Amino acid sequence: MRPGVYLRTVSPEEALNLLLERFKPWLYHRTEEVDVLRAAGRVTAEAVFARCSVPHYHCAAMDGVAVKASSTFGASEVQPVRLRLGEEAFWVDTGDPLPSGTDAVVMAEEVHVPEEGLVELMRAAHPWQHVRVVGEDIVAGEMLLPSNHLLRPYDIAAMLAAGIERVRVKARPRVFFIPTGTELVEVPFTGELREGEIPEFNSAMIGGMVEEIGAEFLRHTPVRDDAAAIRKALEEGLAKGADLLIVNAGSSAGREDHTRHVLEAEGEVLFHGIGAMPGKPTLVGEMHGVPVVGLPGYPLSAVMAFKMLVDPFLRAMLGQPRKEGTPLKATLAEGIPSRLGLEEFVRVKVAKVGADLYAHPLPRGAGVLTSLVRADGILRIPQEAEGLPEGQQVEVELLIERSVLSRSLLVVGSHDLSLDVIADHLRRRYPPFYLSSRVTGSLGGLMALGRGCTMVAGCHLLDPEEGTYNIPYVRRYLKGMEVAVFRLVRRQQGLMVRPGNPKGIKGLEDLLRSEVTFINRQRGSGTRVLLDHLLRQKGLEPRRIRGYGDEVTTHMAVAVAVHSGRADAGLGVYAAAQALGLDFVPIADEFYDLVIRTDALDEEPIKALLDILSSDEVRRDVEALGGYDASQMGEQIWP
Amino acid sequence: MRPGVYLRTVSPEEALNLLLERFKPWLYHRTEEVDVLRAAGRVTAEAVFARCSVPHYHCAAMDGVAVKASSTFGASEVQPVRLRLGEEAFWVDTGDPLPSGTDAVVMAEEVHVPEEGLVELMRAAHPWQHVRVVGEDIVAGEMLLPSNHLLRPYDIAAMLAAGIERVRVKARPRVFFIPTGTELVEVPFTGELREGEIPEFNSAMIGGMVEEIGAEFLRHTPVRDDAAAIRKALEEGLAKGADLLIVNAGSSAGREDHTRHVLEAEGEVLFHGIGAMPGKPTLVGEMHGVPVVGLPGYPLSAVMAFKMLVDPFLRAMLGQPRKEGTPLKATLAEGIPSRLGLEEFVRVKVAKVGADLYAHPLPRGAGVLTSLVRADGILRIPQEAEGLPEGQQVEVELLIERSVLSRSLLVVGSHDLSLDVIADHLRRRYPPFYLSSRVTGSLGGLMALGRGCTMVAGCHLLDPEEGTYNIPYVRRYLKGMEVAVFRLVRRQQGLMVRPGNPKGIKGLEDLLRSEVTFINRQRGSGTRVLLDHLLRQKGLEPRRIRGYGDEVTTHMAVAVAVHSGRADAGLGVYAAAQALGLDFVPIADEFYDLVIRTDALDEEPIKALLDILSSDEVRRDVEALGGYDASQMGEQIWP
Repeated sequence: MRPGVYLRTVSPEEALNLLLERFKPWLYHRTEEVDVLRAAGRVTAEAVFARCSVPHYHCAAMDGVAVKASSTFGASEVQPVRLRLGEEAFWVDTGDPLPSGTDAVVMAEEVHVPEEGLVELMRAAHPWQHVRVVGEDIVAGEMLLPSNHLLRPYDIAAMLAAGIERVRVKARPRVFFIPTGTELVEVPFTGELREGEIPEFNSAMIGGMVEEIGAEFLRHTPVRDDAAAIRKALEEGLAKGADLLIVNAGSSAGREDHTRHVLEAEGEVLFHGIGAMPGKPTLVGEMHGVPVVGLPGYPLSAVMAFKMLVDPFLRAMLGQPRKEGTPLKATLAEGIPSRLGLEEFVRVKVAKVGADLYAHPLPRGAGVLTSLVRADGILRIPQEAEGLPEGQQVEVELLIERSVLSRSLLVVGSHDLSLDVIADHLRRRYPPFYLSSRVTGSLGGLMALGRGCTMVAGCHLLDPEEGTYNIPYVRRYLKGMEVAVFRLVRRQQGLMVRPGNPKGIKGLEDLLRSEVTFINRQRGSGTRVLLDHLLRQKGLEPRRIRGYGDEVTTHMAVAVAVHSGRADAGLGVYAAAQALGLDFVPIADEFYDLVIRTDALDEEPIKALLDILSSDEVRRDVEALGGYDASQMGEQIWP
Repeated sequence: MRPGVYLRTVSPEEALNLLLERFKPWLYHRTEEVDVLRAAGRVTAEAVFARCSVPHYHCAAMDGVAVKASSTFGASEVQPVRLRLGEEAFWVDTGDPLPSGTDAVVMAEEVHVPEEGLVELMRAAHPWQHVRVVGEDIVAGEMLLPSNHLLRPYDIAAMLAAGIERVRVKARPRVFFIPTGTELVEVPFTGELREGEIPEFNSAMIGGMVEEIGAEFLRHTPVRDDAAAIRKALEEGLAKGADLLIVNAGSSAGREDHTRHVLEAEGEVLFHGIGAMPGKPTLVGEMHGVPVVGLPGYPLSAVMAFKMLVDPFLRAMLGQPRKEGTPLKATLAEGIPSRLGLEEFVRVKVAKVGADLYAHPLPRGAGVLTSLVRADGILRIPQEAEGLPEGQQVEVELLIERSVLSRSLLVVGSHDLSLDVIADHLRRRYPPFYLSSRVTGSLGGLMALGRGCTMVAGCHLLDPEEGTYNIPYVRRYLKGMEVAVFRLVRRQQGLMVRPGNPKGIKGLEDLLRSEVTFINRQRGSGTRVLLDHLLRQKGLEPRRIRGYGDEVTTHMAVAVAVHSGRADAGLGVYAAAQALGLDFVPIADEFYDLVIRTDALDEEPIKALLDILSSDEVRRDVEALGGYDASQMGEQIWP
């Protein structure tokens, strides 16, 4: 029962070429005729020829009077020409047909009306002046649009103007999606998820992406991990006329590698495994002449593999170019190690500091879908690189509007839940500002500020000697740098324990008991500094605490560890305990502050942030989280 | 009955600010709850909090065996640890829950199976290795998305993963559109359009743009030019709960300026007239607290005014940033005059020549919708500029994918209908190539080639002395420049006349007859050169030809002038006559050739072009146009 191995790993570029060369999507030729009124977003299947000219009659291009030009010859200020209205001159509006016998329009501003029924002109008109002649825009019979043209709203207007009401377009390529996995539960589901159950959401995600491209999305109900069931589902897709079959999950090189076995028996496997992260466990094969793509089960991997292979394949079927994100040059804020031979796609946040842009890498695990949800862009590490060093100039493919960058704020350092509340309020303003966090721990934030790759750091660092927060660290670590410190909140730190406090934990002393497992925060975090200080103060030895070496990086992760039973207690803020319904044993109060570069205080997003911090509504919302005193929020406390 | 004047003309920026400040679209607060499965493209109305953690149970991050880490301590290659399957070790696949009592996963590759029911490990596992702990991606209770977040497919997936199945989103803002104009005919219509009738296509175009933004589009049937009818339609929109009313046309400062009068009586006019081209006759007002936008009737003007005002207004209602095109730096290929005090938006084609990009302006009339259909981008001329000189560095807002530029070919000069056929074939290839024309006449094309702002010129220029085509001109005008000349077609030039040839025109001599009106081509066009040569040869005096001074710039425009009765005869190619069902009196044969920079012959689009020219299918399609001999198509005839 040894798990399988990848058949052959190919690079992303090679993978796409193999897929394209084998199935030649550009030969796709199913077409249909649709109403032009319903054709926006579709692609022409053949050239479109104008049925009539636009305009289809000579018409006035201005408001004024229509005249025969020759009847105005000789007109001047001293010898104006008078014409009889209704016989020799006719009031017309823009777009009106030229009355018979006329061939020019004189602008309203140049027309005098000396008496009822007469107009007087001071200048001769030349033939066809201010007239839109037939065919000025479109000429009957000319090619209006070529084949493979994506129809935009103004193409629709041009076709309708040219008398075209039906158009032959490419039929939407049909994608048939088969979710596999015995663990999958259909959404919407009733009740709570049990252990081992996962809602089947990849089809909603991939379906959305398929439809954005202009293809049709059909879905099978989830199929259990069983070769016969997968074969049956594939056959159903073929029977439904699928142009592309997607089997989701069931393509990792594990025990459940059924898709590959089905294709080996019923069709062919072209390759299994792409040299890319995320996206490695991807398979491409063929069944009865139709391409089959096995997408990984992790949603992030599925998205990346989709973008690498399926997206360009479907666009090629529709004769469309590949979609590109906006390329952006930035400086890497942190080094990224990477495996040689693997092309890696790292999600990044982009921070604007003065005129410079810094790319901050987000968590890289294939299981972290939120790294994509929260990303500003994607950074590609080529397979021949063993990672990228800090300070490297890199190119990022932007996922957001570029203009958003100058309205964005990245807070690097410790994360506090009040920042989410503040971010939400900033997003509700007009125009909106975008605040997000890069969680590195308090000390990491100050370091990033010192290196110049963020405008704001968030920290709660106790100086044990002075007994004060943050400012001693700013003095020590940001020497010579001009920064200002603003109070965010005073908050409670305490031990989170399971509801009812089953192990009767009353203080840090209880962590030494042998039946108590602790969950710790990482070195450099403010909470760790606080814990170590308190332990020292009380003479408690860290090595006697079971789980002291087991570290996570956020308050919420501590709460989760306790909630899930991985640990019995962990130090963190009240709001995190409350979010998961845990009990809370208060230990100490502390200050969480924002450290901001002085030269950034005039930047729009910083001004908006400081403005928000002084709002009573925001203070109320923060205090509603529990365990917070926001009364000093926004006060400058240093220098 | 003097037409009105504009109330007050404001700059585009001022216009938008007036609209935003008056109606504060960011205060829009209609919301609705929808299924997450149907929420893609919608905007969150409030922050979204995770209902459950992701993963919501500790699970394997790898295929392998789950173990209790402490049971593996001390394992080494010399002293492997053996564990009993089903008791101390358990095979797991990625995503499987960790069996009770285990806290680590050992990768499949590192697991030996010495005998049935046993596994052997050579290395100690550390606690939580290769385990996705609860909340690794999303922690229950945390803010997953802020307010005003546009939901993309992966946001949908993240919400479903976090147990969220319903989400509160902003209701789609409701736009009510009223087409006005007695000339409007509903589409689809039956039969042919009569003079003065225009199909009502602006609503399809504006509706498409409204829906792309994520708003709802409601439409009234066309309303005649009548204040009472327009008032009634506006009231109907208000009754339907419109958030924005659009009155289309009826806003020019002409006789039919009813919208303004209705608003002056029933509400208020904020401004009438924007200092922008196209888009000037735009009106903004208010009725019962609801904004009313009067969009111009010309579709191009309507699009531009929509982009200036309505698009940002609707996006602000939805809390979204303004949409930007990709900015592109290019060199202006031709000077553009412009009126001081008017912001002008010029549609351009962009030609890539080596590493340089050149912006070629397209026809600028507000009536030319095809200038937008065919545009690669839009160039903004600020109101304080009196135009832009040739060679100026400009910034273009790109309307196409940037990658398309390196697959594009712009043929500057004379236009031949066979180029449309060739363009269509290039668009049907994979990946597609994009060919388009900038019509300047034959000589204009050679000049543009000489200035370096195109790779290809198209011309048919007779040298009267040598009696040969094109090459004498290349030698004269492109001295010292390395170019190659390729034959495109041999084609018939002749006099186009109305069907049945009612004026009995048999040759150029007939153009001197007093009852015959001619339509001419512009100076510098090959057809004009040919005409003037033939007239000289025959001793016919141009000034004796009625209409000799009346010029148009394409073969099709000549055909249209004859077809519409503006002229009785014009010189042009057979295919143009055939397209409009005209009779054709052959006069001469000529050669239309392509002149290509030698250093561009290795560029992909040129290679694709030359490849297409040698295709029998393409030659057949060109000859099917009529009047063409394509047997030499693609042959290099010089040097």
